[in-house]
Amino acid sequence: MKIQIINGPNLNLLGSREPDVYGYASFDDYLDILKKQYPELIISYYQSNVEGEIINCLHETNAGFDGVLLNAGGYTHTSVAIHDAIKAILTPVIEIHISNVHAREEFRHTSLITSACKGVIAGFGLDSYRLGIEAFLK
Amino acid sequence: MKIQIINGPNLNLLGSREPDVYGYASFDDYLDILKKQYPELIISYYQSNVEGEIINCLHETNAGFDGVLLNAGGYTHTSVAIHDAIKAILTPVIEIHISNVHAREEFRHTSLITSACKGVIAGFGLDSYRLGIEAFLK
Amino acid sequence: MKIQIINGPNLNLLGSREPDVYGYASFDDYLDILKKQYPELIISYYQSNVEGEIINCLHETNAGFDGVLLNAGGYTHTSVAIHDAIKAILTPVIEIHISNVHAREEFRHTSLITSACKGVIAGFGLDSYRLGIEAFLK
Amino acid sequence: MKIQIINGPNLNLLGSREPDVYGYASFDDYLDILKKQYPELIISYYQSNVEGEIINCLHETNAGFDGVLLNAGGYTHTSVAIHDAIKAILTPVIEIHISNVHAREEFRHTSLITSACKGVIAGFGLDSYRLGIEAFLK
Amino acid sequence: MKIQIINGPNLNLLGSREPDVYGYASFDDYLDILKKQYPELIISYYQSNVEGEIINCLHETNAGFDGVLLNAGGYTHTSVAIHDAIKAILTPVIEIHISNVHAREEFRHTSLITSACKGVIAGFGLDSYRLGIEAFLK
Amino acid sequence: MKIQIINGPNLNLLGSREPDVYGYASFDDYLDILKKQYPELIISYYQSNVEGEIINCLHETNAGFDGVLLNAGGYTHTSVAIHDAIKAILTPVIEIHISNVHAREEFRHTSLITSACKGVIAGFGLDSYRLGIEAFLK
Amino acid sequence: MKIQIINGPNLNLLGSREPDVYGYASFDDYLDILKKQYPELIISYYQSNVEGEIINCLHETNAGFDGVLLNAGGYTHTSVAIHDAIKAILTPVIEIHISNVHAREEFRHTSLITSACKGVIAGFGLDSYRLGIEAFLK
Amino acid sequence: MKIQIINGPNLNLLGSREPDVYGYASFDDYLDILKKQYPELIISYYQSNVEGEIINCLHETNAGFDGVLLNAGGYTHTSVAIHDAIKAILTPVIEIHISNVHAREEFRHTSLITSACKGVIAGFGLDSYRLGIEAFLK
Amino acid sequence: MKIQIINGPNLNLLGSREPDVYGYASFDDYLDILKKQYPELIISYYQSNVEGEIINCLHETNAGFDGVLLNAGGYTHTSVAIHDAIKAILTPVIEIHISNVHAREEFRHTSLITSACKGVIAGFGLDSYRLGIEAFLK
Amino acid sequence: MKIQIINGPNLNLLGSREPDVYGYASFDDYLDILKKQYPELIISYYQSNVEGEIINCLHETNAGFDGVLLNAGGYTHTSVAIHDAIKAILTPVIEIHISNVHAREEFRHTSLITSACKGVIAGFGLDSYRLGIEAFLK
Amino acid sequence: MKIQIINGPNLNLLGSREPDVYGYASFDDYLDILKKQYPELIISYYQSNVEGEIINCLHETNAGFDGVLLNAGGYTHTSVAIHDAIKAILTPVIEIHISNVHAREEFRHTSLITSACKGVIAGFGLDSYRLGIEAFLK
Amino acid sequence: MKIQIINGPNLNLLGSREPDVYGYASFDDYLDILKKQYPELIISYYQSNVEGEIINCLHETNAGFDGVLLNAGGYTHTSVAIHDAIKAILTPVIEIHISNVHAREEFRHTSLITSACKGVIAGFGLDSYRLGIEAFLK
Repeated sequence: MKIQIINGPNLNLLGSREPDVYGYASFDDYLDILKKQYPELIISYYQSNVEGEIINCLHETNAGFDGVLLNAGGYTHTSVAIHDAIKAILTPVIEIHISNVHAREEFRHTSLITSACKGVIAGFGLDSYRLGIEAFLK
Repeated sequence: MKIQIINGPNLNLLGSREPDVYGYASFDDYLDILKKQYPELIISYYQSNVEGEIINCLHETNAGFDGVLLNAGGYTHTSVAIHDAIKAILTPVIEIHISNVHAREEFRHTSLITSACKGVIAGFGLDSYRLGIEAFLK
Repeated sequence: MKIQIINGPNLNLLGSREPDVYGYASFDDYLDILKKQYPELIISYYQSNVEGEIINCLHETNAGFDGVLLNAGGYTHTSVAIHDAIKAILTPVIEIHISNVHAREEFRHTSLITSACKGVIAGFGLDSYRLGIEAFLK
Repeated sequence: MKIQIINGPNLNLLGSREPDVYGYASFDDYLDILKKQYPELIISYYQSNVEGEIINCLHETNAGFDGVLLNAGGYTHTSVAIHDAIKAILTPVIEIHISNVHAREEFRHTSLITSACKGVIAGFGLDSYRLGIEAFLK
Repeated sequence: MKIQIINGPNLNLLGSREPDVYGYASFDDYLDILKKQYPELIISYYQSNVEGEIINCLHETNAGFDGVLLNAGGYTHTSVAIHDAIKAILTPVIEIHISNVHAREEFRHTSLITSACKGVIAGFGLDSYRLGIEAFLK
Repeated sequence: MKIQIINGPNLNLLGSREPDVYGYASFDDYLDILKKQYPELIISYYQSNVEGEIINCLHETNAGFDGVLLNAGGYTHTSVAIHDAIKAILTPVIEIHISNVHAREEFRHTSLITSACKGVIAGFGLDSYRLGIEAFLK
Repeated sequence: MKIQIINGPNLNLLGSREPDVYGYASFDDYLDILKKQYPELIISYYQSNVEGEIINCLHETNAGFDGVLLNAGGYTHTSVAIHDAIKAILTPVIEIHISNVHAREEFRHTSLITSACKGVIAGFGLDSYRLGIEAFLK
Repeated sequence: MKIQIINGPNLNLLGSREPDVYGYASFDDYLDILKKQYPELIISYYQSNVEGEIINCLHETNAGFDGVLLNAGGYTHTSVAIHDAIKAILTPVIEIHISNVHAREEFRHTSLITSACKGVIAGFGLDSYRLGIEAFLK
Repeated sequence: MKIQIINGPNLNLLGSREPDVYGYASFDDYLDILKKQYPELIISYYQSNVEGEIINCLHETNAGFDGVLLNAGGYTHTSVAIHDAIKAILTPVIEIHISNVHAREEFRHTSLITSACKGVIAGFGLDSYRLGIEAFLK
Repeated sequence: MKIQIINGPNLNLLGSREPDVYGYASFDDYLDILKKQYPELIISYYQSNVEGEIINCLHETNAGFDGVLLNAGGYTHTSVAIHDAIKAILTPVIEIHISNVHAREEFRHTSLITSACKGVIAGFGLDSYRLGIEAFLK
Repeated sequence: MKIQIINGPNLNLLGSREPDVYGYASFDDYLDILKKQYPELIISYYQSNVEGEIINCLHETNAGFDGVLLNAGGYTHTSVAIHDAIKAILTPVIEIHISNVHAREEFRHTSLITSACKGVIAGFGLDSYRLGIEAFLK
Repeated sequence: MKIQIINGPNLNLLGSREPDVYGYASFDDYLDILKKQYPELIISYYQSNVEGEIINCLHETNAGFDGVLLNAGGYTHTSVAIHDAIKAILTPVIEIHISNVHAREEFRHTSLITSACKGVIAGFGLDSYRLGIEAFLK
């Protein structure tokens, strides 16, 4: 089983960015742990701050991936284009958030991509990604 | 570890209610499977169609529970009182939905309770409950 | 043919409550007249001020009723849970109102339950219930 | 007792127009049945696609009609002028709809004429007209 | 100087329609008085309940009229087409209302035609028309 | 007959302020002409840029004035307090505007004071004031 | 003089619930003090988390109570049914809040019940109840 | 191939109406050119300022027309009845606009009829009609 | 203990202004009674129709006052500046209303100053002021 | 004559993406046909999923292109930056859509770029591009 | 060069008012520093809590001032009258704010005066005034 | 002191783009002047039309820059991702605009990034950048 994790804008700064909201761990360290926890899986990782490159990466999952964990960061609330990309591919996508976005600023309460995804997991810190993998394993 | 699952209105009809949306399994059957899968946990189950009784049940979890999985059904979108109940107790609560509520009718896009919860898991069918337990286990 | 009439909050006060809006007759007196007018029908009556008990009663109509006349009172404008209950059962439901709710306060202009019902009859005083029965007889 | 039935725009196409929404019967056939069912009534019928002619017809009911059944079609949602016409005449008017307009597109959820009418009957197919006559007979 | 008075829907019922709002005088009687008061003016009068005929009449004023007094009745609040007609002709148009529309129902607070008119006179009963003539005389 | 004209903020600059919108005449010059035109009237004039002083002046008209012409300028769109003052006095008030406020910026389309006034006259330049006097003479 | 105090959802947790918002005192302790302060009054107390039971209790005050102090908690912002119950009874009702609800979350800024009540007292901690009693004594 | 062109309100004034927006050509002159350009087509033309007559004309296209080019003018933004007429007929309809309506006033940004049409062509002056014919030829 | 009562616009007309809403008593008479009822208090009174003078008075309470009772009248619904003034001073302020503002016109339902105040008392006629004093005494 | 066609996000997947909405043809195949149909034209093609690269391409058309056909895909509804780019260049731009966007989801009903374009062609499948070329040829 | 600084409501309390938002310095001390820094300028200072007096002061700048720095405080968000005053004078006006108003409460996000000003400087503490002077020096 | 200037989409066209709004100077020429004016500063310049590259550049300022002047162009009004990037870095950011964005189209009135910035300077042409540098020098 092949899983693509895609992280959107500013998630490259995890560990240094607003640590009271996003935690002190870098994503690379977390990814190592995750891969060890699920040795039977091929977990591919991609991060970009560019909306269009996230779309490119989503398109490429058509070639053999079984699922995508997508944390679109700030694009979650503004991108019809990513919504369309999710609809345009065959691979199922789960929307992931580290923080509980609905408990934050008003402009984070609307997600343009949820309705195109299979489901949503939000608010569990980096553990949200592991839960997403659990969902695909089922 | 003690987990309280609370199901809100109409979830007693699972298995017979709009099966294309909610699936054909009854919750009792699912609960049996879940308990077997996590034999080390004490999983308590409560269902009510009455908003106030859901609040009562939330209050009672203060007495020794480690976590609540709450699928508030239709009250998700209309109940400030349940929001307040979650804030009023010490037990952490995870919001659970069987369907991807954001892909359905407009009036299901707003949740009044998310901002009081630890996190949200939605769209994975009955497996959403298992993922909630996984989240607490972490 | 078995018809269930369900009256929601404050309709137990019919006859004494704001008589210029709701009239001077009590519902019990009206029910007697109605039953005499349709002796071939089994007309069952339930009233509750509790949203969840109205949902319970709707669920129970799955057991042999041919139709429901539902006057959800104030819950008409606020209850997603009753909307879901109507969708979750097989018995067809007609929404009934004694007064012409659209000619009253702004917050009575939106009904959350209409879209789940077969139809609406509003504004004919207690005669709205008889018209509902006529609709089922057809 | 004299009843005027007024049908608004596109209702002349009943039977051929979107039959899954409006049914396969033409209104003329239905009218014949209705007249036979209520031989003691004088039932007059008028249809126009022109908003102003519907207003003219409403004005003319002041001359001896006991009630109007008005299905204003698309003008229901946009016509302040028809609202004013109903208020300007003495004959009581009942708003009629064949389909359950609240279960259809968003722009059909608002009626500008309901608040000027005696009551509303919607969602019972052509039988909505018979129920309107029943309401006047009471 | 030639003035065209155009009255929209339901204003043919003046004198009998909601007299507490619109007064007890018919427009014909008022017109006679007005013509006597301004013998040097040619005052032409047109009333229609049909939106498109009001537009036709506006178009015709291009042929020699110096001004239009337009009481568009209920179309005031809903007609982009009349707005366009006023913009499409060269004759200046004054918007007239008998009642103070802003002190009535919410849906009468918006006028789609004001921004195309030279000015507005509202709330002075039938005397609003005389004030409109005074405005043109200036 | 005693008439009080009240001009609100920035109307002291008439003649120099945005002359393409408000014209080149000063109000004092216009007032002289108006007084000569209606020698039988006592026309009192007050201008202030202070909302509360406009309210004071409105209160004082209770002492013997037969009517008020109020051009509240920018306070038209924001002042509940002036609305209340108009309601609190016995003298009838006519709302006056030099320009056609509905053909200008969005924030000038709402008037908080119209619903408390007898009527509105807007868009006729300084002649709007004369029309207001004509309205009182009737 | 007989006063009914009704507390809505989560107010049974007073003293332990978010003490920085609601204080450290339990309502029972406060009630004892209140009764001692007003020995000439019969003060009856009822608390429920169930919306419908609050409505039941309101109905019962018709039998001999002179006033109701109602803190509807979270139902304040969502319950048309409680609004209707207050209108349906003869006993005057005062809306009570411990905290200053308008200084909290957006969704607490709208009260559906205020317009049916005699008045509102909010923001004085538990002392809001004593002020309500003072209001009835007058 | 038979094409019906329908022009709505004020389009009879093309050539004289606001020529900076709509151009200096009359529609009749343009129609002659168009017919010469497509001699193999039967192009029928209808213009009316009356909403209901536009609906009548749409109904009549059921009798043998292959396509409709509809420029509904001001009714574009306000007419649910024309929307319904388009849905009620079998002939495909293309929405045509001379000007780029989205670059004009706010109230021209919403079209009630687009969702019932096959497609939209707007902003190319009178050439929009030719492009509509090209679309049908395909 | 020193209390400052501040009354805003139009409250100088109490007793003559819309007596069915505000009562027949003048505020001066009421103040005499209040002072006699609380002889141990120093009650200072200020009324102004000018928003800025109300702000000046609020600032001055910093010099030795223990509390302010503020009935800002129409400014309640429109004044960010008074909101800021309350926040800028140290003296606690209670918002007072004679009528139940939420049961009146829509534009009275929003208070811009509540969130800066300690609490609100509304709907008890002039007795609202006494209840405010009671609140400070506590 | 040189025409630049620019396709935005996900349009590289044409032929495989949601074929019931967008059809089964790939854009490359269509482009070949188009070029053969208009051999006298130089038709340049660019596709990118990156908003900023679409802006870059628009800028470059200043160097010798006579027109742009822009299908901005999902950026149509969210991009002020593309709106600004169209305004910033001299080449005229026509907005193209394959599907009738107004007949789809609510968030596709608003276009931020239309008001900067010369015109819009939407709903004709791939033929929308040919119609755009026809518009430039005129 | 003559500059007029105008400070609106509550800015007389700078130094004591909410110092975490507005700082601990009084405006008089700051003004002394500013004048020393720009000895070649004539800097005039005016503060008022009264909206109309701010308008008066703006009017007076027509007599010889080269620029105005206006911090309208709370009136920024509510005053159409100050907007009009800025438009009515010839002196250019720069809008100044001490705090970053967009990072504070929702009701501070809208400025009614910005569109009438030359520019805006906000968020730099008292240094915002110096930057305004720098802007005029250019 | 090291300052990073970041210009967003279409600002590479300064000098040729809509010169009546943005002026005739290119940014490069302006930058030369600016550097000469502040020889003690290291001023770095970056421009991109790609949202994600602006985010990359913001991230890189963490490495030794003392401040950022950010003119995000059209992304100002739509980018949550840039808002997040500003929050995610330690370098203070000042929002810069050449034109007075609030005096332009409606969709330019909302800035999603202001609340994450230290302050805003808008409306002074290219001089807005110099003022930003002045703000950092303080």
